[in-house]
Amino acid sequence: MTLCGILVLLVSVAALALQGVGARRWDPIIRRPTEENATTWAVLVAGSNGFGNYRHQADVCHAYQLLKRGGIKDENIVVFMYDDIAMNDLNPRKGVLINHPTGEDVYAGVPKDYTGEQVTAENFYAVILGNRSAVKGGSGKVVDSKPGDRIFIYYSDHGGPGVLGMPNMPYLYAKDFIDVLKKKHESGTYKEMVIYIEACESGSVFEGMMPEDLDIYVTTASNAEESSWGTYCPGMDPPPPPEYMTCLGDLYSVAWMEDSESHNLKRETVEQQYDQVKERTSNYNSYNAGSHVMEYGNKSIKSEKLYLYQGFDPASENFPPNRISAKAMGVVNQRDADIIFLWEMYNRLDDDTEKKAQLLKQITSTMLHRKHVDGSLEVIGVVLFGPAKAPLLKSSRGRGLPLVDDWECLKSMVRVFEDRCGSLAQYGMKHMRSFANICNAGVSLTKMEEACVAACGATSTSTPLVSVA
Amino acid sequence: MTLCGILVLLVSVAALALQGVGARRWDPIIRRPTEENATTWAVLVAGSNGFGNYRHQADVCHAYQLLKRGGIKDENIVVFMYDDIAMNDLNPRKGVLINHPTGEDVYAGVPKDYTGEQVTAENFYAVILGNRSAVKGGSGKVVDSKPGDRIFIYYSDHGGPGVLGMPNMPYLYAKDFIDVLKKKHESGTYKEMVIYIEACESGSVFEGMMPEDLDIYVTTASNAEESSWGTYCPGMDPPPPPEYMTCLGDLYSVAWMEDSESHNLKRETVEQQYDQVKERTSNYNSYNAGSHVMEYGNKSIKSEKLYLYQGFDPASENFPPNRISAKAMGVVNQRDADIIFLWEMYNRLDDDTEKKAQLLKQITSTMLHRKHVDGSLEVIGVVLFGPAKAPLLKSSRGRGLPLVDDWECLKSMVRVFEDRCGSLAQYGMKHMRSFANICNAGVSLTKMEEACVAACGATSTSTPLVSVA
Repeated sequence: MTLCGILVLLVSVAALALQGVGARRWDPIIRRPTEENATTWAVLVAGSNGFGNYRHQADVCHAYQLLKRGGIKDENIVVFMYDDIAMNDLNPRKGVLINHPTGEDVYAGVPKDYTGEQVTAENFYAVILGNRSAVKGGSGKVVDSKPGDRIFIYYSDHGGPGVLGMPNMPYLYAKDFIDVLKKKHESGTYKEMVIYIEACESGSVFEGMMPEDLDIYVTTASNAEESSWGTYCPGMDPPPPPEYMTCLGDLYSVAWMEDSESHNLKRETVEQQYDQVKERTSNYNSYNAGSHVMEYGNKSIKSEKLYLYQGFDPASENFPPNRISAKAMGVVNQRDADIIFLWEMYNRLDDDTEKKAQLLKQITSTMLHRKHVDGSLEVIGVVLFGPAKAPLLKSSRGRGLPLVDDWECLKSMVRVFEDRCGSLAQYGMKHMRSFANICNAGVSLTKMEEACVAACGATSTSTPLVSVA
Repeated sequence: MTLCGILVLLVSVAALALQGVGARRWDPIIRRPTEENATTWAVLVAGSNGFGNYRHQADVCHAYQLLKRGGIKDENIVVFMYDDIAMNDLNPRKGVLINHPTGEDVYAGVPKDYTGEQVTAENFYAVILGNRSAVKGGSGKVVDSKPGDRIFIYYSDHGGPGVLGMPNMPYLYAKDFIDVLKKKHESGTYKEMVIYIEACESGSVFEGMMPEDLDIYVTTASNAEESSWGTYCPGMDPPPPPEYMTCLGDLYSVAWMEDSESHNLKRETVEQQYDQVKERTSNYNSYNAGSHVMEYGNKSIKSEKLYLYQGFDPASENFPPNRISAKAMGVVNQRDADIIFLWEMYNRLDDDTEKKAQLLKQITSTMLHRKHVDGSLEVIGVVLFGPAKAPLLKSSRGRGLPLVDDWECLKSMVRVFEDRCGSLAQYGMKHMRSFANICNAGVSLTKMEEACVAACGATSTSTPLVSVA
């Protein structure tokens, strides 16, 4: 090490030591009187259902436990989860959810604010806006926040360009979500907000859409054009306990939660977590099995301490700085995870059982449905633009530009497609960019309808989807 | 230019001048007495039919005219072509074929040795072997060659890993073709042979298969894992005359023929042509719109002059060396060319005609059939190997290894697939590597049949293919 290198190191260590002392003794935020009555709110959303999506609800339950240990009260944490996993026949540990191969139960005690058919984009918006009268069903708990309060939103599920999944239709569309955030900001009922989103193409929800002046800082698991990844999956390293045939977590989600759990959140900043999660979610720069964590909105929030959003667990008081697992993880992209799950289930059954034959049918029909959706979109591209220009359907507008200018057009195009070609289903969200580009090219709904008829016939030809109990 | 650079240039110019003099005055092959009675034979094969494949028959007719001008006699040129193009209703110049946007007719005078249903792999083999009694139909002309003779084989069509297309089933399988070449060699009825092959994945026919001791030199349009390319296509640069809605030629094919036509073939060597064709077929190193010309077999033949295989046109006597068009060409990969053709035809029709509606149906059914084939193979991969290992179906064994060890297995797997899932058709040849890898993995025919039933049902579910008149 050169003299210069040693000097830099010494200065860094000194700075770190001062920072540590500062955090414990003179934390200005803790002592500021106006902060004393401030509350941290959290909204946690698992956007999927089905045992093959175990990981999303496990992520969200885990997040609840973390916030709870951090001292955030149940009355300030709103949880959306379909709640079909813990007691599922396929769950090897009934009533228990784990989010790590050696992890403890994260299900016990989770508030069931919005479950089953109450898990909708509309209820999510109403909860954020604190609009109790707009909520349909559920506990009625909403983010009844005050001007000095902070809000933490965490979402985990499948997604697609410009959309996030929900177990009940419709999807959450980027424009609607951003509009809700703007409305919340206009209402002046929070000081600052941090949003973490795990989903495929989750960057596309904010790219070119997220203002910087809403006092909101967002990070997403992936950029606008890539998958996010499931982890702790059967046959991968590290694997779940052998009795599990489904993935236990998602790469970005476990990265932030395991980071939070191994640090003193009164010392760690939002930025430090972003940096560490970004590194881990890239799977240490192997981006073919990892994704690009992105950030949007007001970056000045990054310098704040994490406990303001995730609370502070007294047990972490003496956790050393920068403690984080540094191992690359076996991962599977969100969309392949379903097939892997079905295959695991299939593999564990005895041959020649009726159940096994049914499962094989389900695997093949799921795959063929996907091919049907892909193929229909390809045909529509050729019918609308000709074979030479059809690949433009998948082209990206690039950084800083929204997926689509007219979001109502996007919704309409999806509706026309689904009328003729059948449900896009969870997998089909990946094609939202094609629908967006059809809108961006100024194609009329009539032309789109003709193209859908050409691709799929006058009545829906969708392979029916069989769902797993 | 540095002094060193100038010296190199001067030495090169001097060498070139000497070479030129040598070729005209002391050509050793011309003067060798045993060569005087030697004959050059040629077999030309267009492996496709349908107006969308205009280019393959145009290539082959062009090759005939080139050889004819080179002094090779009709009795020594055997032509295979379906012969459905020149008089096709869609041909804007009835009875005429062109192979270049400003090219003259190449159809007139072409011997119709094997046409229509006589264009088969079996007849091709019989012709090469000089086995007149094995030929079915046609002119009966075969390569009745003697020990000192040279043979030139040129083939143009679609292909796939390990196979070349034929307008009548079955495909030409690499193993059978190489066996025919070995048999021909054993018969001692030629001195040397040069083979040029234009097809997708054409390198795979010879990779790990072609011995170096058969006195045969082969070049292929593409390596074992890539498409070959059509050119002179509508909407591309250079385009065909506006009345043509189909591609006029193929990149590798026009590259060698236009090279031959612009050189004195008594001076140009096989190697010089290989080098120039390789450069041009790469589309000047833009390999995403061009391919890697490959060579196999006995490389010592490369130093020979081209006229031994393609004849010598007296008009080329004073052609300057290295004269060749140096422009990158607009190209389309062989498999997309069909769709482009249908689309061109569709685009030129008036709206609201029945013909236009039919064409749209044909475009969509062609595309959906392709998706059906792709999807079925994907499902079969998962059923046989599980989702994690299914991508291995497409993996290459690498250079120097044959596509498959057991070629009979490959044929059987294709048969089982086609029984359950319908015809692979021309497009489906691209999946031959998957069938090969299924054989390489030791999958039994019974297991394959089960997988095909899982993917396609107990009876064929293939989308029926509509063909163009």
